[in-house]
Amino acid sequence: MKRTYLDHIAATPLRPEAFEAMRPFLTEAFGNPQSLHSAGQEALAAVDAAREEVAALVGASPGEIYFTASGSEANNFAIKGLALGQQARGRHIVVSAIEHNSVLNSVKALERSGFSSTLVPVDREGRVDPAEVEKALTKDTVLVSVMTANSEVGTIEPVAEIAAVCRSRNVLFHTDAVAAAGNIPVDVKTLGVDALSLAGDQFYGPKGSAALFVRKAARILPLIDGGIQEGGRRGGTENVAGIVGLGKAAALAKAEMARRTAALVPLRDRLLDELPGRIEHVIVTGPRINRLPHHASFCVEFVEGEGMLLFLDMKGIAASSGSACTSKALKASHVLLAMGFDHATSQGSLVFSLIDGTSDADIETLFEAFPPIVERLRAMSPLYTQYLKERGS
Amino acid sequence: MKRTYLDHIAATPLRPEAFEAMRPFLTEAFGNPQSLHSAGQEALAAVDAAREEVAALVGASPGEIYFTASGSEANNFAIKGLALGQQARGRHIVVSAIEHNSVLNSVKALERSGFSSTLVPVDREGRVDPAEVEKALTKDTVLVSVMTANSEVGTIEPVAEIAAVCRSRNVLFHTDAVAAAGNIPVDVKTLGVDALSLAGDQFYGPKGSAALFVRKAARILPLIDGGIQEGGRRGGTENVAGIVGLGKAAALAKAEMARRTAALVPLRDRLLDELPGRIEHVIVTGPRINRLPHHASFCVEFVEGEGMLLFLDMKGIAASSGSACTSKALKASHVLLAMGFDHATSQGSLVFSLIDGTSDADIETLFEAFPPIVERLRAMSPLYTQYLKERGS
Repeated sequence: MKRTYLDHIAATPLRPEAFEAMRPFLTEAFGNPQSLHSAGQEALAAVDAAREEVAALVGASPGEIYFTASGSEANNFAIKGLALGQQARGRHIVVSAIEHNSVLNSVKALERSGFSSTLVPVDREGRVDPAEVEKALTKDTVLVSVMTANSEVGTIEPVAEIAAVCRSRNVLFHTDAVAAAGNIPVDVKTLGVDALSLAGDQFYGPKGSAALFVRKAARILPLIDGGIQEGGRRGGTENVAGIVGLGKAAALAKAEMARRTAALVPLRDRLLDELPGRIEHVIVTGPRINRLPHHASFCVEFVEGEGMLLFLDMKGIAASSGSACTSKALKASHVLLAMGFDHATSQGSLVFSLIDGTSDADIETLFEAFPPIVERLRAMSPLYTQYLKERGS
Repeated sequence: MKRTYLDHIAATPLRPEAFEAMRPFLTEAFGNPQSLHSAGQEALAAVDAAREEVAALVGASPGEIYFTASGSEANNFAIKGLALGQQARGRHIVVSAIEHNSVLNSVKALERSGFSSTLVPVDREGRVDPAEVEKALTKDTVLVSVMTANSEVGTIEPVAEIAAVCRSRNVLFHTDAVAAAGNIPVDVKTLGVDALSLAGDQFYGPKGSAALFVRKAARILPLIDGGIQEGGRRGGTENVAGIVGLGKAAALAKAEMARRTAALVPLRDRLLDELPGRIEHVIVTGPRINRLPHHASFCVEFVEGEGMLLFLDMKGIAASSGSACTSKALKASHVLLAMGFDHATSQGSLVFSLIDGTSDADIETLFEAFPPIVERLRAMSPLYTQYLKERGS
């Protein structure tokens, strides 16, 4: 069976160049970067080179990049580390309602130790209004976190404007750029952010390799206390191979971003434009502009996302019904609910996210396979039967 | 130049079988284990199989194994997560004075939020006396952590006895088995521990892959909040390849432990027995019995560890002067100080840690190279000049 992988937001394939860059560090070059001997120094040089590549992707200095094992770890490190680092000044945090669970649950963990928080709403397209962020700030606010782009609905947020609001009020600003970095231009100086999370498995790097940018002047406490690794701010032996793969993926993303985007945007737009015409009761979620170039998302009414995913899988098509971190929880997405969709509609969430190499033929395959799947699922749906009855009357 | 790698405690080479097991997950099998489609389920099956292999290595149930990205993360997760999970009952923690910095600094972090702690002393060989642990317990103690074995001096601690003390007082007990697991028999049931940390790069698995065992009944809060991965207790997309490599290394360690130990112990003992006879003023640190099978450690008086490492490296010999996590900090080891060595002597710390495949020829190479290095360094040492002067008078 032909396999059609349209689940970029869950994981991208690893670029063969990145695997080849990693290979020596999974075979003969096994030194610990903190060892003084040659084997260690060879590993350290590779980690340092990768740090420069990751820094270059986001316009940072290498000394401002801290390697982590996942975007979630980077988000935990940012939210907890920055909040605890500033708590002498205040204990209030502002985040958007559509942040990733690693941000939202980090805030909840801080609330258990005396912090308070405000959730900023979003509009129907998932956009955070910078004025709403400003309204949420109090004298006690020490940290704001709004994501660069949302992986469930593709919305690119006005991060530079939000960062400007925070700067003018002397409040630290973190952005979760896990879905964005490596896919759209992200520059910490242009955006004016104090901290930024990114993850390799969102731009053809390895799983288990991610990073947090923290501006030099920003005080952050470690999430993982330990030895002298990462400037004493993140303990644990470095995952050298993973870091090297992340660096290579970052360099490739920087070099190829324009080409990848140019190839994917027409396919994305074809999905957004044509899919709703091929099946009744399909709603595009997220915006048409300021949208991730690889991202098309929908709510398919009277159908559950999980059912569609399983039937699509039987046709060789891999897609997602939202964040892979919550997909099995079978809960309505907090993102869609915050955007004003009702529970029933949110259950039909579906994301087709394209990878480098996705072709018109892949879109055709999807267009062919998908409508019969929806029809079949609707035939089994009490909600749809009820809808037809009501419409008939 | 022939390379002689005697730095097991910093990092072991990755077993080729483990690399081969990882390879599919770094190439075609790139799915996210949390995805419902086949690519995701294939990754999940591999993670589950690895969880069984890791559980089998330490006699645990697979559901009690949480994958982490390092031994340090596992230690942070255990100390912070268990302490915070029990804080309604009390806020006092007991740890030994020779724990890894990831344990000691986790305790310090907890002290900033109201916990208190007691450091239990060790004897001249680095051994923790269970009676001392018992003495340190208060009505407020909720957690004790004592390592299974120390990587700087090789001491294997009486963990089963300490665990029994804790159990009789209804206090949770964690052991950092990073240096021990995969190298000596470690069974969570025999030991009677509530939590146990282990790391792949200490038994020929990949860096960036480690685990925490937590007994089912023990309440632990996440260190990394996020999605539904690892039963909701550790957020972040799983490092599938790393986990698979860890599983393979665990299975190999279980199958080969007796053979590896039988091969290494005579070489270790030769080092411990003969090195002090080949150079003056060399002291064995740590015990002769209850010692890691791959571990020989010394203090070389009137010489600094770093100098010896660099000269040894020029001869192609990789060794360590203690924990790689602190080796560049140029501080006297807290482990040796706790064992009663003075600052000057501690500076001459040196660890030769053998790997599977280390041979008599490697030991000969070391015996040949090492004495001239020490002589040369001592010739430059003001302390040694002073010593000779005093001895002469």
